[in-house]
Amino acid sequence: MTQARFCITADDGAARTGQLTLAHGTVTTPLFMPVGTLGTVKTLVPADLDQLGAEIMLANTYHLALRPGVETIAACGGLHRFCSWPKPILTDSGGFQIYSLAPLRRIKETGVAFCSHIDGHKFFFTPQKVTQLQETFGSDIHMVFDECPPYGEAKPDVARSMRRSMRWAEAARAARQNQTLCQFGIVQGGVYDDLRRESCQRLCELDFEGYAIGGVAVGETVAAMRHVTALCCELLPASRPRYLMGVGTPLDLLASVACGVDMFDCVMPTRNGRNGTVFTSTGRVNIKNTQHRHNDAPLDARCSCYTCRTFSRAFLRHLFKSGEITARRLLSLHNLHFYFNLMRKIRTAIAEQSFAQLWAEQRSVFAGEKNLAQQPDFV
Amino acid sequence: MTQARFCITADDGAARTGQLTLAHGTVTTPLFMPVGTLGTVKTLVPADLDQLGAEIMLANTYHLALRPGVETIAACGGLHRFCSWPKPILTDSGGFQIYSLAPLRRIKETGVAFCSHIDGHKFFFTPQKVTQLQETFGSDIHMVFDECPPYGEAKPDVARSMRRSMRWAEAARAARQNQTLCQFGIVQGGVYDDLRRESCQRLCELDFEGYAIGGVAVGETVAAMRHVTALCCELLPASRPRYLMGVGTPLDLLASVACGVDMFDCVMPTRNGRNGTVFTSTGRVNIKNTQHRHNDAPLDARCSCYTCRTFSRAFLRHLFKSGEITARRLLSLHNLHFYFNLMRKIRTAIAEQSFAQLWAEQRSVFAGEKNLAQQPDFV
Repeated sequence: MTQARFCITADDGAARTGQLTLAHGTVTTPLFMPVGTLGTVKTLVPADLDQLGAEIMLANTYHLALRPGVETIAACGGLHRFCSWPKPILTDSGGFQIYSLAPLRRIKETGVAFCSHIDGHKFFFTPQKVTQLQETFGSDIHMVFDECPPYGEAKPDVARSMRRSMRWAEAARAARQNQTLCQFGIVQGGVYDDLRRESCQRLCELDFEGYAIGGVAVGETVAAMRHVTALCCELLPASRPRYLMGVGTPLDLLASVACGVDMFDCVMPTRNGRNGTVFTSTGRVNIKNTQHRHNDAPLDARCSCYTCRTFSRAFLRHLFKSGEITARRLLSLHNLHFYFNLMRKIRTAIAEQSFAQLWAEQRSVFAGEKNLAQQPDFV
Repeated sequence: MTQARFCITADDGAARTGQLTLAHGTVTTPLFMPVGTLGTVKTLVPADLDQLGAEIMLANTYHLALRPGVETIAACGGLHRFCSWPKPILTDSGGFQIYSLAPLRRIKETGVAFCSHIDGHKFFFTPQKVTQLQETFGSDIHMVFDECPPYGEAKPDVARSMRRSMRWAEAARAARQNQTLCQFGIVQGGVYDDLRRESCQRLCELDFEGYAIGGVAVGETVAAMRHVTALCCELLPASRPRYLMGVGTPLDLLASVACGVDMFDCVMPTRNGRNGTVFTSTGRVNIKNTQHRHNDAPLDARCSCYTCRTFSRAFLRHLFKSGEITARRLLSLHNLHFYFNLMRKIRTAIAEQSFAQLWAEQRSVFAGEKNLAQQPDFV
């Protein structure tokens, strides 16, 4: 019997908040998972994540299988002990990474042959093998191995790929050994409603502990992403957590929570931080701008993170312009704080039936950014 | 009247331990200053330094004057507030950096004209100007502007350069405005005893709050460095702090404390950490080595730093080999912990009259490294 238990404690329209009990602890939803691809969130350490209030971290099977390799992780007592992260971990299966990183890949019905992008070493990933890898890691949530066709493929190709992913999902489900760990299926089907419907239906028959919406944020319009998200949320069982993979901006998170999404991961807060862009209560700020040169004020006067409590924009700009690693660390920390704080606000707003108000507030903060303002809302 | 007050509380041979009261607090000697060239110790933040027990940080006038510029620091309330480091700061004058970094430099009797190594901007540094810059920063200890000839120059050139540095020291002393900040003179004279004697004598006549031994660790042998250190310590007043600039390895620190040195700075712990080499209670460790691949043990089982309390060698090696910034941060933290811990041991050993024993222990730990074992001891 699986230990996963998902309790919805409050809802507000389609948005809901709840608790998900996993092998290494209980997490509250909607939640944001910081991306620790290789077992670490870039520039940060577990003590930072603890302080930020992170309850679950994401890591990646493709990357970890290539380096350091499953033998090292097994020798060090599993992924939690290896990373010194005792709380829940979700590992992505690596399907997306094989398609975006690995050279010389050949797709067969049984799996994918590819070469490591690091050293050319040959691998053959099957649904069974990827399930086994993640069970060896001890991932609280492991994702099924899927095929991720690039955006823009013809519908027959997307259909063929989705159906193979569904056969792989079935194989992964059958290969599962450790019932204390959760396994999530991944919906595919591109931007085609009928394919998404078919994918949802086939996954639901396999009765996963949770369901992810994959194949989004790969180049489609925001409107298309919103549409697919809303459609899948309607089709997936309300009693299981829904995870929108690789999304997104603060407004993406709000719009998706409004559809009934419970879980997110995205490199945006950390990657933007490393590149000098931060999220604040008054919108985005580019710390490289000359206007901050003599500015003794913090990034965000209303933010309580270490970066904002400690440093001025002038100093952060100076560190960033000087190429100091410390700047990347401090801006990553701030952005993650912003995301975790947003998720806290979302959970509270749902519990207090004021989600629409929070969403409207944030829309006005980030209005006009990245074509989000003129996109329709799908709620 | 200067607020600096140096009290020696115990000695053991020529080694001594004491307290130095500066504008932003009292520090205990012998001490090690972490290098925060641009106002930050690379990869770390002030909270880390606090936790490590750092009492004083070093920054660099050349670097800060070029970027972000004195205007920014002044606009942000001085260097302490700009960096969010409320404890003492020592700024080096930048003499060494002009000689090692700046292109198109022309030395005149009044100062040095040079171009920024960052953007080619022209500067003219005089002893007066450099004193003024550091007083604007608010540095607890500011160093006189000096000329740093490269190692291997002919004696007449070294003599000419040293005498100019002594004239500049006089000019810097006269230019001093803020009596609450300390000013240190810098002994020059290369590897020539008579020049070092002359330099010490001329500086002592200017009655600085402290004295630095400059022009060491620039390419001379360890024996020559030890000899110069011992000679200068004999010639400089016992009642004032002695600072050996840019030194060094753990054994360098011990040998120099044995001569009567009170203060050190060196990039070694942080630079080595960023390059994957760490100091441990059983000698140096290169984390890149394959032998650590599956090693679940910490870097140093006897170390209490966050890195050693939290992570295995296998995980640190994985992060380092993967190019993760977090590895550089964790290894820098560990190495600084090692240095601060060594300084604590040194102070305790002096107070307990067991300094020779500590030195012998550390010699056996680092025996055979970097030609130190076969060097004579100058005590």
